[in-house]
Amino acid sequence: MSVLVVGSVALDSVETPFGRAEDVLGGSGTFFSASASHFTPVKLVGVVGNDYPVDKLEPLAARGVDLSGLEHAEGESFRWRGRYRHDLNVAETLETRLGVFSHFRPKIPAGFLSSPFVFLANIDPRLQLDVLSQVERPRLVACDTMNFWIESRRPDLMELLGRVDMILLNEGEARQLTERANLVLAARWILDKGPRYVIIKKGEHGAFLFTRESIFFAPAYPLEAVFDPTGAGDAFAGGFIGSLARSGDLSDANMRRAMLAGAAMGSFAVEQFSIGRLLEVTASDIAKRVAECRRLVSSEEEMPG
Amino acid sequence: MSVLVVGSVALDSVETPFGRAEDVLGGSGTFFSASASHFTPVKLVGVVGNDYPVDKLEPLAARGVDLSGLEHAEGESFRWRGRYRHDLNVAETLETRLGVFSHFRPKIPAGFLSSPFVFLANIDPRLQLDVLSQVERPRLVACDTMNFWIESRRPDLMELLGRVDMILLNEGEARQLTERANLVLAARWILDKGPRYVIIKKGEHGAFLFTRESIFFAPAYPLEAVFDPTGAGDAFAGGFIGSLARSGDLSDANMRRAMLAGAAMGSFAVEQFSIGRLLEVTASDIAKRVAECRRLVSSEEEMPG
Repeated sequence: MSVLVVGSVALDSVETPFGRAEDVLGGSGTFFSASASHFTPVKLVGVVGNDYPVDKLEPLAARGVDLSGLEHAEGESFRWRGRYRHDLNVAETLETRLGVFSHFRPKIPAGFLSSPFVFLANIDPRLQLDVLSQVERPRLVACDTMNFWIESRRPDLMELLGRVDMILLNEGEARQLTERANLVLAARWILDKGPRYVIIKKGEHGAFLFTRESIFFAPAYPLEAVFDPTGAGDAFAGGFIGSLARSGDLSDANMRRAMLAGAAMGSFAVEQFSIGRLLEVTASDIAKRVAECRRLVSSEEEMPG
Repeated sequence: MSVLVVGSVALDSVETPFGRAEDVLGGSGTFFSASASHFTPVKLVGVVGNDYPVDKLEPLAARGVDLSGLEHAEGESFRWRGRYRHDLNVAETLETRLGVFSHFRPKIPAGFLSSPFVFLANIDPRLQLDVLSQVERPRLVACDTMNFWIESRRPDLMELLGRVDMILLNEGEARQLTERANLVLAARWILDKGPRYVIIKKGEHGAFLFTRESIFFAPAYPLEAVFDPTGAGDAFAGGFIGSLARSGDLSDANMRRAMLAGAAMGSFAVEQFSIGRLLEVTASDIAKRVAECRRLVSSEEEMPG
């Protein structure tokens, strides 16, 4: 089954202890698509300015990402400039230029309206709600958000929580949204507001999947070298939701397997700048990394994978 | 098989967001013993002053902790006063009074010298080396350490690394010792210095077991309420090493099971002040918590436990 993603398509300039990159492909929609496309067809809705190197998106199209919902607007593309120092879990934003993204009003193409899986990447909750008013009863709607919207758009975000099946957010955002320091209590608070699934991402420390009945924890794969953490969360979401959409199976067991696919894709994302590594990995690389993530926590006699 | 532990037996005064406790049982030797005694007989070597409420150690003796190696010295007992604010991963030390601990020279009683498992809790590496010169070729020697010794006793600590089978330390200590930010590289650095097993503890984010051949990750059990984190690392060590000593089985599969016993005991330790919860849990509570830790990361069709 296909996944519709609505998110940013940006140009990132990133500095890490290991190097720097200028105006490389970035944005939540881009990272999600590059990751999810390994599992299932993806339909991307976003906006770029007339300065965007759209030819560089060609590898995405070749991987089965439908770019016909990518709006081309007059003006500059969304640009983010950031830096990571030694604590690679913390991004320092040096500059954000919204450009054409500031007037983005997602219009979902007719052919995308019946997508069974929908991922509302981190954009204004009012736009996330607007997308939901356009699409036709998806099987699963997931959303992301960030500190900025939690502060400035709380009522809209609360309305959104009542209308999504799943939210993915990082631990700082979960604490800020719920005003609870304990993640179990934070997850329960969110579950009470509507979503059936709450994924709390902890970066290099792994990710939790909370439902009303159970808790699952997917470890982060311990890499020897983390090159650039940008996009890891969206790559995780792409692997997770892409994997769910591939089978359409929302059983607890399959949710857990999909979380490991998310962990694997998140770990690939940080191995190179931009979506470089996400584009080059093969199905066999992914299967191997998923098996390694499973083996990492396996305490049974028979080691799976 | 029995475990010999050499460590501090202290009085802790702790303040957390949830309450405070004055002069309660604390110290690495105490937490380790309370935890390990659920798995195997424990022999404790340490020192207390003449102000120590030794009758309060009676529950430990009743649990099979041999206290005949506990030296009673003239003077004040070791006292630690600390505070945790909202980030329960970070202890703020308000006061440390070493008392009789400052002149502690562990003398291992004759009956303890052939203990097959030895845990050198966090004390001066010179004393840890001295203990090793007394005991008779144990099957497994594990040590802990801390930032203070890494700074002030590096040559002794390096000598110790060449003489232990296992080291347990937290992620900050691992980075400080190895001058490597990446934990995989840090673990490899330590493995190159001698130990066959490196356990890097990440508090609420779980713990890694590194060997030359594999990596295992034990999640931390996601508690709804962490009351007092003091002693969690020593309770982890007690569950881990106690569980290994119970069977004497050092296979990879059993190491992994033992790590989950460590995770379970660490999670109990933080549910109450001091060793209160460690003393009251039953074998059935422990088995249940271990199964929950396993289920937390299980992505197989058949959920174990």
